[in-house]
Amino acid sequence: MIVILKNNVPGAKEEQLVSWIKNMGLQVHISRGVYNTVLGLVGDTSKVDTELLESLEIVQSVKQVSEPFKCVNRKFHPDDTVIEVGDIKIGAGNFVLIAGPCSVETEEQIVTVAKAVKASGADMLRGGAFKPRTSPYDFAGLRAEGLELLKIARAETGLPIVTELMNIMDIDLFEDVDVIQIGARNMQNYDLLREMGKLDKPILLKRGLANTLKELLMSAEYIMSSGNERVILCERGIRTFSDYTRNTFDLSAVPMLHELSHLPVIADPSHATGISRLVPPMALAATAAGADGLIIEVHNDPMHALCDGAQSLTPEDFDALAVKIRDVRKAAGL
Amino acid sequence: MIVILKNNVPGAKEEQLVSWIKNMGLQVHISRGVYNTVLGLVGDTSKVDTELLESLEIVQSVKQVSEPFKCVNRKFHPDDTVIEVGDIKIGAGNFVLIAGPCSVETEEQIVTVAKAVKASGADMLRGGAFKPRTSPYDFAGLRAEGLELLKIARAETGLPIVTELMNIMDIDLFEDVDVIQIGARNMQNYDLLREMGKLDKPILLKRGLANTLKELLMSAEYIMSSGNERVILCERGIRTFSDYTRNTFDLSAVPMLHELSHLPVIADPSHATGISRLVPPMALAATAAGADGLIIEVHNDPMHALCDGAQSLTPEDFDALAVKIRDVRKAAGL
Amino acid sequence: MIVILKNNVPGAKEEQLVSWIKNMGLQVHISRGVYNTVLGLVGDTSKVDTELLESLEIVQSVKQVSEPFKCVNRKFHPDDTVIEVGDIKIGAGNFVLIAGPCSVETEEQIVTVAKAVKASGADMLRGGAFKPRTSPYDFAGLRAEGLELLKIARAETGLPIVTELMNIMDIDLFEDVDVIQIGARNMQNYDLLREMGKLDKPILLKRGLANTLKELLMSAEYIMSSGNERVILCERGIRTFSDYTRNTFDLSAVPMLHELSHLPVIADPSHATGISRLVPPMALAATAAGADGLIIEVHNDPMHALCDGAQSLTPEDFDALAVKIRDVRKAAGL
Amino acid sequence: MIVILKNNVPGAKEEQLVSWIKNMGLQVHISRGVYNTVLGLVGDTSKVDTELLESLEIVQSVKQVSEPFKCVNRKFHPDDTVIEVGDIKIGAGNFVLIAGPCSVETEEQIVTVAKAVKASGADMLRGGAFKPRTSPYDFAGLRAEGLELLKIARAETGLPIVTELMNIMDIDLFEDVDVIQIGARNMQNYDLLREMGKLDKPILLKRGLANTLKELLMSAEYIMSSGNERVILCERGIRTFSDYTRNTFDLSAVPMLHELSHLPVIADPSHATGISRLVPPMALAATAAGADGLIIEVHNDPMHALCDGAQSLTPEDFDALAVKIRDVRKAAGL
Repeated sequence: MIVILKNNVPGAKEEQLVSWIKNMGLQVHISRGVYNTVLGLVGDTSKVDTELLESLEIVQSVKQVSEPFKCVNRKFHPDDTVIEVGDIKIGAGNFVLIAGPCSVETEEQIVTVAKAVKASGADMLRGGAFKPRTSPYDFAGLRAEGLELLKIARAETGLPIVTELMNIMDIDLFEDVDVIQIGARNMQNYDLLREMGKLDKPILLKRGLANTLKELLMSAEYIMSSGNERVILCERGIRTFSDYTRNTFDLSAVPMLHELSHLPVIADPSHATGISRLVPPMALAATAAGADGLIIEVHNDPMHALCDGAQSLTPEDFDALAVKIRDVRKAAGL
Repeated sequence: MIVILKNNVPGAKEEQLVSWIKNMGLQVHISRGVYNTVLGLVGDTSKVDTELLESLEIVQSVKQVSEPFKCVNRKFHPDDTVIEVGDIKIGAGNFVLIAGPCSVETEEQIVTVAKAVKASGADMLRGGAFKPRTSPYDFAGLRAEGLELLKIARAETGLPIVTELMNIMDIDLFEDVDVIQIGARNMQNYDLLREMGKLDKPILLKRGLANTLKELLMSAEYIMSSGNERVILCERGIRTFSDYTRNTFDLSAVPMLHELSHLPVIADPSHATGISRLVPPMALAATAAGADGLIIEVHNDPMHALCDGAQSLTPEDFDALAVKIRDVRKAAGL
Repeated sequence: MIVILKNNVPGAKEEQLVSWIKNMGLQVHISRGVYNTVLGLVGDTSKVDTELLESLEIVQSVKQVSEPFKCVNRKFHPDDTVIEVGDIKIGAGNFVLIAGPCSVETEEQIVTVAKAVKASGADMLRGGAFKPRTSPYDFAGLRAEGLELLKIARAETGLPIVTELMNIMDIDLFEDVDVIQIGARNMQNYDLLREMGKLDKPILLKRGLANTLKELLMSAEYIMSSGNERVILCERGIRTFSDYTRNTFDLSAVPMLHELSHLPVIADPSHATGISRLVPPMALAATAAGADGLIIEVHNDPMHALCDGAQSLTPEDFDALAVKIRDVRKAAGL
Repeated sequence: MIVILKNNVPGAKEEQLVSWIKNMGLQVHISRGVYNTVLGLVGDTSKVDTELLESLEIVQSVKQVSEPFKCVNRKFHPDDTVIEVGDIKIGAGNFVLIAGPCSVETEEQIVTVAKAVKASGADMLRGGAFKPRTSPYDFAGLRAEGLELLKIARAETGLPIVTELMNIMDIDLFEDVDVIQIGARNMQNYDLLREMGKLDKPILLKRGLANTLKELLMSAEYIMSSGNERVILCERGIRTFSDYTRNTFDLSAVPMLHELSHLPVIADPSHATGISRLVPPMALAATAAGADGLIIEVHNDPMHALCDGAQSLTPEDFDALAVKIRDVRKAAGL
């Protein structure tokens, strides 16, 4: 850790700071420049509260040399992590296709979609039972009943199920779910993350709308440091000034997360764009960027069948896309 | 609600859509332009799922004419809401100064700061007992013990206490807290918001890092529509590309929220800037912009006393600032 | 164009507005809702100054139904535009690979790189002669001399040259350049755009750091409406809160621009990420997303050869990448 | 300057880098941590191309200890700069009120507005003659004729005039203008900035839509290092995800720019918000934040008089605001 002092710091204040740092068991290398003095802190700097340091009047800025995350860090775990969900593997060259409707609505709907996506090569079934909604007046999902319908679809197809949990008090209901999704709005719900760390179940952790990669990795660190090493990271679009898509799909995050961490990284082109016409090209783009999997919305309900869905593909669109995804992976040498 | 259809939509599809809308009990005014047809939906459009409408293949875009929020809407409640916390009033010209340390650390610390800020004219005491931290390894607050220390400081000074709640399971611990703060990271934790709606206690709702004013108001709507009408809105900075402050203090939100809603609006210059030197000018700016109150960090702990705090003022700084705040309110005709 | 009036507008003011609009030769359809009245303007609304309309006190908001751009609009030009640069074609399935160093430095450097990228299949040579630099103290390019060196490299390899113009007064110097690049910082330098419209030469127009797709298309409209129909659009990253890459590569812009416009769209993974390790995956991602070409930095200078360049690939990296790009195009059915 | 090397850099590569740095006449302090080695560069590091350094494969990151700007830097010029425009002074406690219409339209209009704002206490007259417009089809100002009308208004009122220049080729037309404004879109038009540096006239430099404070200061550095020391900085809103105002008014920039630079800093609440109702509160907020002046749109044209302007105040609004601005300055101790 590097601490850059301000100009003209009184010697006594500098000494106080240095001895305070040394009391934490760290060594301090002092380097005096023309205008500024720089302290190099050597030792286990993970104990140092950088916010506190930065807040000191005599400090101009602090630069962390080591990343603040450990369990998720590729430096300490050079090989890709492979996460198993039944027979399915994710990571280290194992690619997964997760598909299904935005919301679970009826048994017929979810079973029909599940069969269709399985036939097209999907590895897992997604479907929302508990739905986060901006408005208190909008439909918030079938909740527990939705989970039961997902299990019926699993029984019919053999596809493991992935679905979102929002509330610590609902954890028991998710006991028989294969993969728990933590949504973008809960990426920094730390108590919920700690609870996920106590489960023996893969967690699909979505990046928050306005969160940096470091913050995403720190949230994964919450889960891993609480005991659950099976975390799947997911890029799903960030909020920017750009307004033609619902979010801005930050695909460079895929190779960057692979560089920083050993965890598998998947991408969600449906939520990232919010426009079904953009899902196929962006699904292929995410594949070419090296994602370990995709999570894609596919619908089969009558109102959408009538006119076609916003961010959902039809089963036919998905079938055509799945073929290209496999081909692009080969072409990109993945 | 206005629905703009795409070019060259087949007549049969348009008719299907129109009859589907009419089945919801709405009237449809059709206006044909040179290139596009526009549907005007008249009636109680709050039942219409705009995301679904926008997702239809034949629809180019949807524009809501009425705001989707009701309880919080100034249109239906033209007078400013006044919220009472004991003898303290907030809103409609009643200005509150909330001050205190970032974290509650010791009885001596919190009582000393409480006495100091009271002497300078603070109306309420803030202090973090449960602290959201990006890293699982950082200090997360004294938790229940911190709440007890806040109550001691209240007993000593008479100042009502404001403190953050993050977890539904902790609600009982907050029974004797005067104002519950819902932090930026939990602004869209909808289950938590619904629970806040069941309490008989003012809720201080902070704007999320990447949330629009509409989303903030919809979150307030969650609380109000669940039964609790005492919501205080708080602007505390948003995340942008600008990197010299921790966040970008979006002060125009203050007059705009006043225009859209009857709820009181306060501002937090400490978290918005993250730099103590910027707190006094930005506190005055927020005051001049018409905020109904300010929430400001003031510290008194030894390590900070040594060198001065990052986003915290000393009691002396706060005292000088409080005088100017009162003068600026008068000068601005507030 | 849709004009939504505020609540409770006095009848006389509404009539004034309606007659003002009718005086512009437009028809007005009036639709009265429960709270708001909506005016539908029918006719040639391109004459209407929407900013003025929006500014009126009685107007709540204005929504454009038709796009404000014409020459660039796919609606009025359904087929893809193909732009020819000598024998090279861009657009409508014709893919171009543009490569070369960030700055032209010496004859040996530019000729060596040009030969290398040509051998790997590049179609055009890029190289900066006039360089925009944030600091007045940094090297701003070899300027006119750099253009001469580019022409030597063209003579040696036959590759057309692409290079940036920043100043109207330099236009004569660019007479013998094959494609003029207008950089991100000049995307809204309207006088410069108009001058580009008077040339008989393809213009590569880069999206500004904080510009929407509509603004990019309006800037292309400046060039086309001034007489030059040969505009190539380029996505090169936008500025967001995300800080691990220099910019955020907004790849969804590629299919979206194709939907809105008939012009070819290329992508620049080097500037978008600023990190050479991310260039190959993001070049493949842009290809899979349907870009009509890529512009990639390739270097060959000794200091970089020593240690490897930031956003530049070595000729060897580029050679391996070019093969994969061709394969991904096939796999994606492009 | 601090250079942090990656883990496990081979000794030979590190030595190459160190000797390359020493050849630039700098000293290198080497500090070895547990995982990383840090180089401290001491001496005149302004010659070092940090982008090149950061691009080296063995370098993890580079941190500048000194700011890259000199002429604008408060470190080397501790006292506030005062800029004189005729009898008017700006900076170091001298506050200026600049007001006038968005566009100069007719002699009657500009003279009427000029007289009105002068009567309310304005110090200078603003008015657009050359107008940047997103669309090539919108009115782009009266151009040279507009400048003549501004001069007439100056002759009638004695108010110095401030107006925007966009094109190097128009500089001669601005010879008799008192203050030249460089707009947000041209903040990084470096050739134009250098030309401004050759003039003997104050330059009002507006912050670009997506530019950091460092970039704004570097653009001011272009002007100052070319010979013109009279630069006025202007915060006018930045582009963010927040969509209820045209831009997000980043008022913390005012005290931060004062800390970093000795140049005067003014603010533009009209362009920052784009909504006239928000101009008075945000003008007062900018004043309380310590701005050295405000630039405010005031109109008097018939169409706006009919209904009221978007981001423009009426002369009556402006008059009432001007009184409060003076009072707020006193109250804030400015």
